[in-house]
Amino acid sequence: SKMPKNYQTLAADKKTQQWNKIPQAWRLPDEISHDANATNVMDIPRTCGLLNETECSITSDHDATALLGQLKAGVWTVEQVTVAFCKRAAIAQQLTNCLTEIFFDAAIERAKNLDREYHDAGSGGEMALPPLFGLPVSLKDSFRVRGYDTSTGLGCYVGEPAGENSALAALLIDLGAVLYCKTNLPQSIMTGDSDNNIFGRTLNPRNKFLTAGGSTGGEGALLALRGSILGVGTDIGGSIRVPSVCNGVYGFRPSVGLVPHGGVRDLNPPGTDGVRSTAGPMATSLRDCSLFLKSILQADTWKYDSTSISVPWIDLKPKNKLRIGVALNDGVYTPSPPVRRGLKQAVDLLRDNNDIEIVPVNLPDVKLHYQDFVSYMTLSGSDKKHYYEQFARTSEPVIPSLQATGFLSLPGTTLKGFFDLNARRAEAAKTYLELFRNNDLDVILMPPAPHTAVPLDSWSTITYTGLWNYLDYPAIVIPVDQVRDIDAADDLSNAKFGPDDEKLYSLYTGPEQYKGAPVCIQVVGYRHKDEALVKAAAVLDSIINKI
Amino acid sequence: SKMPKNYQTLAADKKTQQWNKIPQAWRLPDEISHDANATNVMDIPRTCGLLNETECSITSDHDATALLGQLKAGVWTVEQVTVAFCKRAAIAQQLTNCLTEIFFDAAIERAKNLDREYHDAGSGGEMALPPLFGLPVSLKDSFRVRGYDTSTGLGCYVGEPAGENSALAALLIDLGAVLYCKTNLPQSIMTGDSDNNIFGRTLNPRNKFLTAGGSTGGEGALLALRGSILGVGTDIGGSIRVPSVCNGVYGFRPSVGLVPHGGVRDLNPPGTDGVRSTAGPMATSLRDCSLFLKSILQADTWKYDSTSISVPWIDLKPKNKLRIGVALNDGVYTPSPPVRRGLKQAVDLLRDNNDIEIVPVNLPDVKLHYQDFVSYMTLSGSDKKHYYEQFARTSEPVIPSLQATGFLSLPGTTLKGFFDLNARRAEAAKTYLELFRNNDLDVILMPPAPHTAVPLDSWSTITYTGLWNYLDYPAIVIPVDQVRDIDAADDLSNAKFGPDDEKLYSLYTGPEQYKGAPVCIQVVGYRHKDEALVKAAAVLDSIINKI
Repeated sequence: SKMPKNYQTLAADKKTQQWNKIPQAWRLPDEISHDANATNVMDIPRTCGLLNETECSITSDHDATALLGQLKAGVWTVEQVTVAFCKRAAIAQQLTNCLTEIFFDAAIERAKNLDREYHDAGSGGEMALPPLFGLPVSLKDSFRVRGYDTSTGLGCYVGEPAGENSALAALLIDLGAVLYCKTNLPQSIMTGDSDNNIFGRTLNPRNKFLTAGGSTGGEGALLALRGSILGVGTDIGGSIRVPSVCNGVYGFRPSVGLVPHGGVRDLNPPGTDGVRSTAGPMATSLRDCSLFLKSILQADTWKYDSTSISVPWIDLKPKNKLRIGVALNDGVYTPSPPVRRGLKQAVDLLRDNNDIEIVPVNLPDVKLHYQDFVSYMTLSGSDKKHYYEQFARTSEPVIPSLQATGFLSLPGTTLKGFFDLNARRAEAAKTYLELFRNNDLDVILMPPAPHTAVPLDSWSTITYTGLWNYLDYPAIVIPVDQVRDIDAADDLSNAKFGPDDEKLYSLYTGPEQYKGAPVCIQVVGYRHKDEALVKAAAVLDSIINKI
Repeated sequence: SKMPKNYQTLAADKKTQQWNKIPQAWRLPDEISHDANATNVMDIPRTCGLLNETECSITSDHDATALLGQLKAGVWTVEQVTVAFCKRAAIAQQLTNCLTEIFFDAAIERAKNLDREYHDAGSGGEMALPPLFGLPVSLKDSFRVRGYDTSTGLGCYVGEPAGENSALAALLIDLGAVLYCKTNLPQSIMTGDSDNNIFGRTLNPRNKFLTAGGSTGGEGALLALRGSILGVGTDIGGSIRVPSVCNGVYGFRPSVGLVPHGGVRDLNPPGTDGVRSTAGPMATSLRDCSLFLKSILQADTWKYDSTSISVPWIDLKPKNKLRIGVALNDGVYTPSPPVRRGLKQAVDLLRDNNDIEIVPVNLPDVKLHYQDFVSYMTLSGSDKKHYYEQFARTSEPVIPSLQATGFLSLPGTTLKGFFDLNARRAEAAKTYLELFRNNDLDVILMPPAPHTAVPLDSWSTITYTGLWNYLDYPAIVIPVDQVRDIDAADDLSNAKFGPDDEKLYSLYTGPEQYKGAPVCIQVVGYRHKDEALVKAAAVLDSIINKI
């Protein structure tokens, strides 16, 4: 076997390759891409002059559902749409460093083929078209796409193009989607900062001093800048929801197994079980999350992935009245002022609605469950040296946000310890079932985190999201507002859950530092009731965001 | 804590309690119940004179689906039906020792209440009735039923009546079923002989020199004698299918999670994972297996059991043509002459049918997978001394069939070893998915075991059934014939898979010793495609058994 290169050489090669994949005409002038004063770059795609009016409209004015309608109706060709998103993704890349693998050429080639097929189908009309005909879809780097690396930002996996597609990539292609790029993530895929030694850090387009979130942070930034209209991430503790919060997009963590997860690169030792990662959409509308789930469930997922739970999509009848359990906090960390305000605003709007019943709930024992969640995350421990060994092959250092988690120095457990974790979780599952059943809840509404996007490398805990991975409940993040001038920092005495809570609470220093940070809510459904969740979340979204 | 009694005292007490639960008028004369010459007792329920004509007809002439129709139409009262089955179960108990907990009184009381409710419903008609209105259902002893022991035949759990119902018992009651008894199983719930130190051994009503099978052997014998019309067992390696084979009844092992399994007593250390037990029906017709699955899936199983996968029942459209993969053997053990003949008969009938396409298949690497299956079964090993410790509390010996498995002396594994098992199984799952997908198979048809019911304590391997637990594929046993005079034993050279195969093959000595042994087939579907399996199996059953 050949001697692996040093990570710095590999990174330099990768960055050159990336740069070469962006056509000359799509490159931003230096004064824009290196503007040291630009905290917020959200307007640049539309103002930089690289997109023509049609491209601007294609990428700015539609969600995936609307765009798909236009594609199917032939308003735009697939090529037009693909070029528009490739171009805008290239701009987003230059502004936030959100991409990893770039394959615009192949995407445009495929788009042309789809257009030809569409022409050939002729008067066959919409029925003959695949469900996601021509829709551009971006994927987190960990999804294998044939012909491209799945390095996940680790030097040791650079230069090993995938021999076959991950199950979801294959399925999306069969459904008619156009894949055109993959997106950035943290070293180890386990932190709230999408930063690694090969591709570097993804920046938050709303505020470069705040994290873009992780682990699906590249998708978050790309979607916020509308360099993508539908992205796919994975979530084992919050990796879809955290970047959705940071970038103000919709993010949906489905129950494990519904969306094919086979062929995703996982840095755990093979066969690791306990809490499983799940694949899910990030989007600019709630109905796009629904579109994604429906398209997937209506396909024969079992044919693509031996690990999937192949349940059919059911068109549920709307309920007369929704019962919403509201949890103001998780009993571990106190939400910061803007997060509290966002939830209160939402609840007030819901309370005014006759079709909604609000039920205050407390989430039992989150602190204990989170300890066990962390134990599940670190089953093999550092004894296994699994992560360090991968880093060491190209001499790469541990990124600061990973070091800060402490995950790499936890001891791991035994088979007996693992079964004990399972037994305790089974008890927790009973308790949470009772919470849902005894209160006749449709969903739980709560913050997705105790804070908004935070300064770089300071997202240190995921109790609000990890709980639902621990229990395998589906959960959706909905943006509802952003930090405003009224969100003054208040006294530490508001943090009532102990010293750790106080420390986290003190992160919020007021609206100045947190300018532009989105404020989101989280809607949680019961396990495997993903469609009911999506349906209920749509109702809440329509009331709260007046959509 | 009180000093536990010796198992012999506990067993004597239990047997006395059992006897006292059988009314004087339902007791068989000694010359019948202790007839040393009776090898086959199948006719006795009808000839013993204890059942009147109506009771005979109720219990003999219907499957559960037909009986339910009669109950709903009011042809018989629930009380009539309940009494008839209690009586016949009492007779079966006296002939084969198939019961554990007996609660005829409570069942008849409930039946009267249901009758009253039905009368009160009056002209409301059938729609107002619960799906399983008045249907008697028997349960394996391991299902907790409030107020009765869940000893599973272990002395250490005798005298501890359950405080609440297992999830399935609760659900069945809510669906309108009448529970009236629980049934016998092996010490440890892990062998092919339903024998333990508290209740003793269940006999095979067709041939007392052959095993009644296990671990759900009590159900098998009870159903064969029609002391039950619908029974529920559990299956972690063949525990529903093995006794179905031995007793010539239909047995269905669903995919894990579809049928609520919460609150079943499991002798493994809590939290043990890997290969999971699943609950499923045993019945006298295939449509009753369908009735069971449909009734369960149409209920909100999630409300009963935090471990269930709550997928809805779909009424699938019938397929034009079924593609049936036929595996003549599993590559580990050679089927005995009657088993080969049974499968050949079935395949010949199917081949003649225009709606069926036969595809010969080989099952990859069953021997390797079976080794891993056994490792999963014994993860905690004897180091844990978990089983021995439970036996020791009341000084009970290990039953011969458990000793023979060798399971109790296996070493167990580590967390790393467990993950390695998972990783290998994930590879196996891919291979078997390809087998199904690349051959476009609807189901696989194969023997359920390399032999029929065998002499007592000689059922030593479960490769034919355990494979599908390992992969979590649903599987159904269908009786197609019985051992006939033409089934001569043939030369050992027919056993081509090595010394172990030869040894097992030599068990079959010809039709004399195996008189009355049912011959069955097994139909296997893809994971979570339980309804498609049931539907396909019904087609095969109708062709093979001309139903």
